[in-house]
Amino acid sequence: MSFYYTRIVHFQDTDAAGVVYFANVLAMCHEAYETSLIAFGINLKVFFSNQEVAIPIIHASVDFRRPMFCGDELSIKLMPKGWGDDEFEISYQVFLKEVGKMWVARANTKHVCIHPQTRSRQKLSDEMRRWLLSFGSS
Amino acid sequence: MSFYYTRIVHFQDTDAAGVVYFANVLAMCHEAYETSLIAFGINLKVFFSNQEVAIPIIHASVDFRRPMFCGDELSIKLMPKGWGDDEFEISYQVFLKEVGKMWVARANTKHVCIHPQTRSRQKLSDEMRRWLLSFGSS
Amino acid sequence: MSFYYTRIVHFQDTDAAGVVYFANVLAMCHEAYETSLIAFGINLKVFFSNQEVAIPIIHASVDFRRPMFCGDELSIKLMPKGWGDDEFEISYQVFLKEVGKMWVARANTKHVCIHPQTRSRQKLSDEMRRWLLSFGSS
Amino acid sequence: MSFYYTRIVHFQDTDAAGVVYFANVLAMCHEAYETSLIAFGINLKVFFSNQEVAIPIIHASVDFRRPMFCGDELSIKLMPKGWGDDEFEISYQVFLKEVGKMWVARANTKHVCIHPQTRSRQKLSDEMRRWLLSFGSS
Repeated sequence: MSFYYTRIVHFQDTDAAGVVYFANVLAMCHEAYETSLIAFGINLKVFFSNQEVAIPIIHASVDFRRPMFCGDELSIKLMPKGWGDDEFEISYQVFLKEVGKMWVARANTKHVCIHPQTRSRQKLSDEMRRWLLSFGSS
Repeated sequence: MSFYYTRIVHFQDTDAAGVVYFANVLAMCHEAYETSLIAFGINLKVFFSNQEVAIPIIHASVDFRRPMFCGDELSIKLMPKGWGDDEFEISYQVFLKEVGKMWVARANTKHVCIHPQTRSRQKLSDEMRRWLLSFGSS
Repeated sequence: MSFYYTRIVHFQDTDAAGVVYFANVLAMCHEAYETSLIAFGINLKVFFSNQEVAIPIIHASVDFRRPMFCGDELSIKLMPKGWGDDEFEISYQVFLKEVGKMWVARANTKHVCIHPQTRSRQKLSDEMRRWLLSFGSS
Repeated sequence: MSFYYTRIVHFQDTDAAGVVYFANVLAMCHEAYETSLIAFGINLKVFFSNQEVAIPIIHASVDFRRPMFCGDELSIKLMPKGWGDDEFEISYQVFLKEVGKMWVARANTKHVCIHPQTRSRQKLSDEMRRWLLSFGSS
């Protein structure tokens, strides 16, 4: 099972070339991640400013097949993949409503669970493990 | 009649003080404006990159009463006010779902209709006049 | 005495209308504020994530006279004005190198010194008072 | 030869976790690219809104080794690599002044030269070829 996040392209997402600025697509994918966490019952305010545990992104990549324009209706498909005790990856596919089945962009983020102060690795919380398991076996 | 836009505070909206970065509230209000235009049937891609007519913002202001946090559910109330042949103003009130009737932020944007090349003023299009009229008399 | 901050307009600052997105001008003005604090010897990391004292913006406004384009060289003039025991205002004028003496945008931010947890007002630190005094009498 | 771009971390670059938001590092790297083009004499306004030729990013990736904080002084090293008739890649290494020789983040962007309307590939301009050659053989 995947999670889908729907998002209109805002004016602020675009640049003077008339299309979505490349790095903003990663921000949209992160919104999909946040929305999935909320849907699972996780409190974002606590999650992202927790003094005991943080899950920063250590790698991200993104590919673009077609430009996206202001007002475009996007559907972002989120799916965790390849996770271990203290890390996980998420893959995203961005679809344009009119275009159909082909992705217009796709992305990948790798997250590692750490202690915010020492930056040393620690195991994912039970809550995050349940969130990951909720997607079933990929 | 007012238009309401619902919006979750994203992680990217926040800053190291743990709350929404001040200028991002104006961007959220602009999203409310865009969403209202879409709801009225206006094509945003054409609207914002039109070579014949542009309606740039010439003034904006924003007041903050309370901080907003990642994951907060916001409702933005949009209402045009005081408009003429070639200009209009929009007022916004940002409400936090839990807090209730008091606004947590409010903003104001003033827009002027111009020729993008010459920057001289021109009358608002019939479409924009209809959009303004659709809110009724305030 | 005023503080001047020089800044090139980045591609990301622009939108599909080909000019700087309105809310980004406030962000550039805030950069000028940050740069002035650094120049005065203030540690920004400590300043903006201090658990004892915060100086959030409670009001901001911005006016635009001309559009700004990618690559434009801006000079932002910063000048505190009208400050009291627990608050101050800053005015900004944005100049375009080629255009000369006329501002292309101007802005204003009002800051209030508070306890981050209780949100109650407190006096400005000696450091901030010295920063304000360093501009002389306007 | 590489190009170096110096950049202070702004408050807006950070998020509620107290560090630079991941996607903003790619935006900083793009600023380094823009600054390198300006230094070579290229007009950014024309470059990024050219109706005849565009060089969009079709792939980007970024790795993080350490978090970056508000006020941190970054030095971004830019170096083109592996380019052909109608495409090129750029690698970036982000250094923190205090930390020294180890990169804190690194990134990669792949650019393809196209006709903005048809989106079909075309050869890089002589100007861009000269910009690429100016870095010497890698």
